[in-house]
Amino acid sequence: MTVNLASQRSDVLPFRAMEVLAEANTLKARGAPVISLAVGQPDAPTPAAAIAAANAHLQRGRIAYTDAPGLPSLRERIARHYAEAYGVAVDPSRILITTGSSGGFNLAFLAAFDPGARIALASPGYPAYRNVLRVLGLEPVEIPVSADTNYLLTADHLEAAHRERPIDGVLVASPANPTGTVTPPAELKRLIEFADAHHIRFISDEIYHRLAYSGGDATALAFSDRPVIVNSFSKYYCMTGWRIGWMVLPTDMVRVTERIAQSLYISAPELSQVAAEAVFEASDELDAVRAGYIRNRDLLMQALPDLGFRDIAPIDGAFYAYAGLPDDETSASILSRRLLARCHVAITPGVDFDLARGEHFIRLSYACSHAALAEALERMRAELQG
Amino acid sequence: MTVNLASQRSDVLPFRAMEVLAEANTLKARGAPVISLAVGQPDAPTPAAAIAAANAHLQRGRIAYTDAPGLPSLRERIARHYAEAYGVAVDPSRILITTGSSGGFNLAFLAAFDPGARIALASPGYPAYRNVLRVLGLEPVEIPVSADTNYLLTADHLEAAHRERPIDGVLVASPANPTGTVTPPAELKRLIEFADAHHIRFISDEIYHRLAYSGGDATALAFSDRPVIVNSFSKYYCMTGWRIGWMVLPTDMVRVTERIAQSLYISAPELSQVAAEAVFEASDELDAVRAGYIRNRDLLMQALPDLGFRDIAPIDGAFYAYAGLPDDETSASILSRRLLARCHVAITPGVDFDLARGEHFIRLSYACSHAALAEALERMRAELQG
Repeated sequence: MTVNLASQRSDVLPFRAMEVLAEANTLKARGAPVISLAVGQPDAPTPAAAIAAANAHLQRGRIAYTDAPGLPSLRERIARHYAEAYGVAVDPSRILITTGSSGGFNLAFLAAFDPGARIALASPGYPAYRNVLRVLGLEPVEIPVSADTNYLLTADHLEAAHRERPIDGVLVASPANPTGTVTPPAELKRLIEFADAHHIRFISDEIYHRLAYSGGDATALAFSDRPVIVNSFSKYYCMTGWRIGWMVLPTDMVRVTERIAQSLYISAPELSQVAAEAVFEASDELDAVRAGYIRNRDLLMQALPDLGFRDIAPIDGAFYAYAGLPDDETSASILSRRLLARCHVAITPGVDFDLARGEHFIRLSYACSHAALAEALERMRAELQG
Repeated sequence: MTVNLASQRSDVLPFRAMEVLAEANTLKARGAPVISLAVGQPDAPTPAAAIAAANAHLQRGRIAYTDAPGLPSLRERIARHYAEAYGVAVDPSRILITTGSSGGFNLAFLAAFDPGARIALASPGYPAYRNVLRVLGLEPVEIPVSADTNYLLTADHLEAAHRERPIDGVLVASPANPTGTVTPPAELKRLIEFADAHHIRFISDEIYHRLAYSGGDATALAFSDRPVIVNSFSKYYCMTGWRIGWMVLPTDMVRVTERIAQSLYISAPELSQVAAEAVFEASDELDAVRAGYIRNRDLLMQALPDLGFRDIAPIDGAFYAYAGLPDDETSASILSRRLLARCHVAITPGVDFDLARGEHFIRLSYACSHAALAEALERMRAELQG
């Protein structure tokens, strides 16, 4: 007898990265000297200024709901950040504090799209996009991107897809996960202009901003006030476990998004909001972490080709390298299991990010210490070339 | 030109309670001595044991993602709570830590139901249920409940609705918001048996457990292993702003729910999970808060009829009283605005909870100090009878 089955829409794929992590944690618990390059999470702690602000607030004892859009002072601080970092004026009323960028994507998809809407996005790409879209009854239109465009989704891609069958939304991440590529400002502008001209809602994933290494950051807000911006304190700001992020909304989407946020989240965690406001004062500490990523990146740019990896995406931003397997390897899943079992290095097979071609790619996260990365690459060299 | 409209599904009603709160806060900021009985949030601070645990964890600095289902030690502690408080054995693998009960309801609805599913629930009821169901493409089937059944949704109600047109799920809260009523164990058992026998998924909102005043708590788990349980640390445990709660899932829904939780939330806030584990040791402090609610309840049971309120729901649990307007009042919205403007008492008009009949009811939250409640009732007396 089949009673009360789970819904069909909840039949999404698990993240391999999280399963690799679970296996790595099991090995670690048994005493194995595991180095994890598998998860997109800074090894660095939350900056001291944020910890201090949270601590001071904790001593007051009452941790309460905030208004659904978030603490006014935090929204104002983020507006100031847009002025200072990008020279873009954003009214604080357009800023909604979210429970991580996870909350931001969920709200953006729900507020912008009705069931059946088609949302274009690059493949390889962050797997939660695809899963959340599917769960919400939306259709991810995955556009394969390759070395020929530096793994970037371009306005030409979008135009071709839209011509084939109309697109309702497009999601672009720059810097991107898993490829680490950065969309040049001129290309971003072309994408947004095409989207605006064709009534396609542009969603800009800017969670890896401040982690671009070969140029500055361009926010979609510089080109139009129609895009929905999703950002987060998890990456540059080293605050993953606090689950705190923000959106910038077009004026006419503010109230509807706030209303569904009320029902779906009530508010983001108050203590995380207080800590996030303080973290803007931690630039020295955070830039030192960033300098570490740059050293790690330099090392990878040299080591990955040496190890035989090919079709390496430009290692331009975030803290990921995405690379095609060496000639004599045939399966990223097998390689990642082998590396974990034999040399205790955890990496992520590309299938998380690209169902069609990911078996031939791996993703490395280099948000770890330089010593850990160097040691991991040494072990990989012994295993791959030994 | 209408470009990029917001989605139709995001067109949900705002919470009046939150708007009353915003207005109350504006008055407060101008120095008015506002007493709020409007929002379902304890005035009492988070217990010292939880603050201390969070503080100790903060000093370690790195606040990270946890596994999607939550910290194993917290899941084990909650399992122990089921054994201790209810005498029910629950395997920790069935417990999923959520970002508040908000996260729990969203996951329960997505994991259990596909678009178009019909979910029965009592009206008056918590407005977020209705809003979230609508946003997710599900159909809330609101069943009017009245003084004749003590404002309870009964198995007879469910059977009648299911006979009229098949029901896919039913959501029952006990104690309930906004009515404060408690479903007797025998009635809960009848509801669950009917649901199980007719392949209707039973969702049990147990977030006001430990706040029943005329009898004990009955968990749906005592009667069947098919229901989905949603619970929270916000109410009895005084941890609203931490955004932390849990679900107990039927075994065959664990993996699917965990997978969508990975994509939709990554994990609940780590610091909140650490604090929640410690709050189980704060029973003395929390029972003192509870004793205050009981004093407030005694006062309301006497004062509300004296003030002319009628059809008062049994004030049996949670920290709400739901009462019909006195004879000479015609609109709860007008009365709530008048009370706020003229005597600085914030209450919630019933329309949040019951679109059809709520204009004739108000909800009072009595999770405040006894002195504040007494003063608010004194001011209301002067305004209503002065």
